Amino acid sequence: MEEVRKQLCEWIDKNEHKAVRLLKKTVQERSIYANEASAQAIMIEKCRQLGLMIDIWEPDIKQLKASPYFVSDRKSFKDSPNLVAIKRGRGGGKSMILNGHIDVVPEGDRSQWSDDPYSAVIKDGKLYGRGSTDMKGGNAAMLMALQALTECDVALKGDVIFQSVVDEECGGAGTLAALLRGYKADAALIPEPTNLKIFQKQQGSMWFRITVRGRSAHGGTRYEGISAIHKAISVIEALSALEKVRNKRISDPLYQNIPIPVPINIGKIQGGSWPSSVADTVVIEGRCGIAPEEKAEDVKAEMAEALEKMKMSDKWFRDHPAELEWFGARWLPNSLGSNDPLLTALKNSCREVMQKEPVIEASPWGTDAGLLQEAGDIPSIVFGPGVTKAAHFPNEYIRIKDLQTAAKIIVLLLIDWCERADEEEEARWEN
Amino acid sequence: MEEVRKQLCEWIDKNEHKAVRLLKKTVQERSIYANEASAQAIMIEKCRQLGLMIDIWEPDIKQLKASPYFVSDRKSFKDSPNLVAIKRGRGGGKSMILNGHIDVVPEGDRSQWSDDPYSAVIKDGKLYGRGSTDMKGGNAAMLMALQALTECDVALKGDVIFQSVVDEECGGAGTLAALLRGYKADAALIPEPTNLKIFQKQQGSMWFRITVRGRSAHGGTRYEGISAIHKAISVIEALSALEKVRNKRISDPLYQNIPIPVPINIGKIQGGSWPSSVADTVVIEGRCGIAPEEKAEDVKAEMAEALEKMKMSDKWFRDHPAELEWFGARWLPNSLGSNDPLLTALKNSCREVMQKEPVIEASPWGTDAGLLQEAGDIPSIVFGPGVTKAAHFPNEYIRIKDLQTAAKIIVLLLIDWCERADEEEEARWEN
Repeated sequence: MEEVRKQLCEWIDKNEHKAVRLLKKTVQERSIYANEASAQAIMIEKCRQLGLMIDIWEPDIKQLKASPYFVSDRKSFKDSPNLVAIKRGRGGGKSMILNGHIDVVPEGDRSQWSDDPYSAVIKDGKLYGRGSTDMKGGNAAMLMALQALTECDVALKGDVIFQSVVDEECGGAGTLAALLRGYKADAALIPEPTNLKIFQKQQGSMWFRITVRGRSAHGGTRYEGISAIHKAISVIEALSALEKVRNKRISDPLYQNIPIPVPINIGKIQGGSWPSSVADTVVIEGRCGIAPEEKAEDVKAEMAEALEKMKMSDKWFRDHPAELEWFGARWLPNSLGSNDPLLTALKNSCREVMQKEPVIEASPWGTDAGLLQEAGDIPSIVFGPGVTKAAHFPNEYIRIKDLQTAAKIIVLLLIDWCERADEEEEARWEN
Repeated sequence: MEEVRKQLCEWIDKNEHKAVRLLKKTVQERSIYANEASAQAIMIEKCRQLGLMIDIWEPDIKQLKASPYFVSDRKSFKDSPNLVAIKRGRGGGKSMILNGHIDVVPEGDRSQWSDDPYSAVIKDGKLYGRGSTDMKGGNAAMLMALQALTECDVALKGDVIFQSVVDEECGGAGTLAALLRGYKADAALIPEPTNLKIFQKQQGSMWFRITVRGRSAHGGTRYEGISAIHKAISVIEALSALEKVRNKRISDPLYQNIPIPVPINIGKIQGGSWPSSVADTVVIEGRCGIAPEEKAEDVKAEMAEALEKMKMSDKWFRDHPAELEWFGARWLPNSLGSNDPLLTALKNSCREVMQKEPVIEASPWGTDAGLLQEAGDIPSIVFGPGVTKAAHFPNEYIRIKDLQTAAKIIVLLLIDWCERADEEEEARWEN
């Protein structure tokens, strides 16, 4: 490894405590939906310390709503500031966006957590807490990479545009706001938890809501009514069958190790108002995966058709069709070609740091990469520390060693992609 | 028909508008759980007009909680007054409680109602609205019977104790409060909507809550989690199988026309917190019927066993058993013998007014009769206007003619059961 590359990696190794301290502080802030400000404040302070050019703003809901890419159900971004912090290059190099989201999903049933979900407790080299893997760990890795450049006095030609965005878990309004504010680059990296695999392709996903009707009756004569709960079970079964059909079609070898490449997840169910009445309405909410090469509109049509088909086997649905809405969140799918220079550069850095061939896969979830690609025309890739199976889970954790590995890979990627501006200078000094 | 009996029935026929006006006013008050006061005020004013001895009180939660029969989840009965109004007899006759509840179940999804659920609109001889059949119509019939006695100057030997109680839909705390206040009688009639059939036996019922656990995960890798929604569907299926087994056992001919004698109704379901997370917890709530001869404790044990059995077929439940609670409401079952004098008297009045043999059945739902019988040792029977299939339903209605028929049957039952005190007097006058 070249001297400066070694220095950068060594600095990261030596300063693990700095990464841990930063991650701990951000995990301890419960930055769920519409509540990101206190965690964002920690990111802002770190960027200020690093001497980056800071831009903080509350996304403008009117401007966002005018964009066809806006899908969040947010009414305002008051107290949900977006952060962009730029390490300006000396010119002549390619620029790179480092994009991470600061929002986390709710912790769910606290009784399933061994420790407080916001304790950021460390055990056996793992830091635990909601958001540790998705994706405050990735954010810390990016900032450690930037700090390494500063501490080792490495200057770049191209700009590095660090983004700590809000609202990713609801569909990417924070990243969209950064695009609309004019932040573009020649490439983007998003360190979502890929477990240090490279996700060359990412599936998209969309949220749906299905309202299922029944007819109420006294529970003692439940046969006089039609249970919306039982009808909702039929709808769930139909969605399960649709999921099978959709996944059988997928032959992309990048998905070969993924049990269900594009899942349909039923995440919420709610219905009925009285234990001894037959439920008249049930609402289910879920997320439907979009394969990397699919169009969102085609997926919507396919689900609508599956519900339409239910009318054939169940007369009730003919007169009381299940009502399908797409709401709240959507992540566009994304893919890079096998010879894409960004993919090649990232593979090289991975090989150099991990001393082995990186695993290339397709993601089981959506990220803001599809938006950066489609709305911003920015080639984007997803690679980061943390395991997917810990995300959105009780006892979410990140392995600190993986965070460190990611930071090293990112810093090497940056000096390759954005190019060093001080090489000639250094050469002069050495001679 | 004897002259005075004819007079009473004719008075009721002629004063249908009075019954309608009273019913209309009470239906227009939305007297759901903990919100009964404004409807109760109308009952109180009517009883005052009838010259009854009025007792109004807010049930004492401490006193109720000390009773083993108390099951409601109410924390207070503030602004939920109970009403007892007595037509004192001249002595020497048997007394009768006329018991009706003033509370109604919520209206549910308003879009399924043709008119406002509290409009009390009349169409084709039917008065529509939440509570019209369950059981404000029955209450109006009882008060019309009492008014007929007053207007026709018919005095009785025994007391008639009219009760307009709160909280029946949550398990009978209002009736229990009246018992604890000392109101007893030689018999009780509850005009719940039997469609003018006599319910010699009533099933009981209890509310249950089952908490089903899953394990959360990101929806995109849902195979890493365990969906509490899917596990809840398994529980619902197990309850459905249990319902079949329980109903197969029932051979009582009184249930022969009832499709499911003792139903298990799943009334509510709620779970999951995020569309793109796997749901970690689902709570279902429902009501389980208790056959007239069953013990509540045996039914509880049977359901617990059915859930226990799920561990055999699904390993998940071994480590994460579904949690069963009995909460909120319970109605005890009740039955009268075939030669019971109350049953015989009611059959006679029915025959006299309807000019046909009354239908004798067992109820598909619980009432406060089980409580009157078990906690008060008062032989109780259920008979009233309105059809069960309208109760707890959108577009609930009562046929005004049926309300009138019930009023006539009730007034004849009263003069037979409590005996006329003025017959000799009248005889003197006539001679």
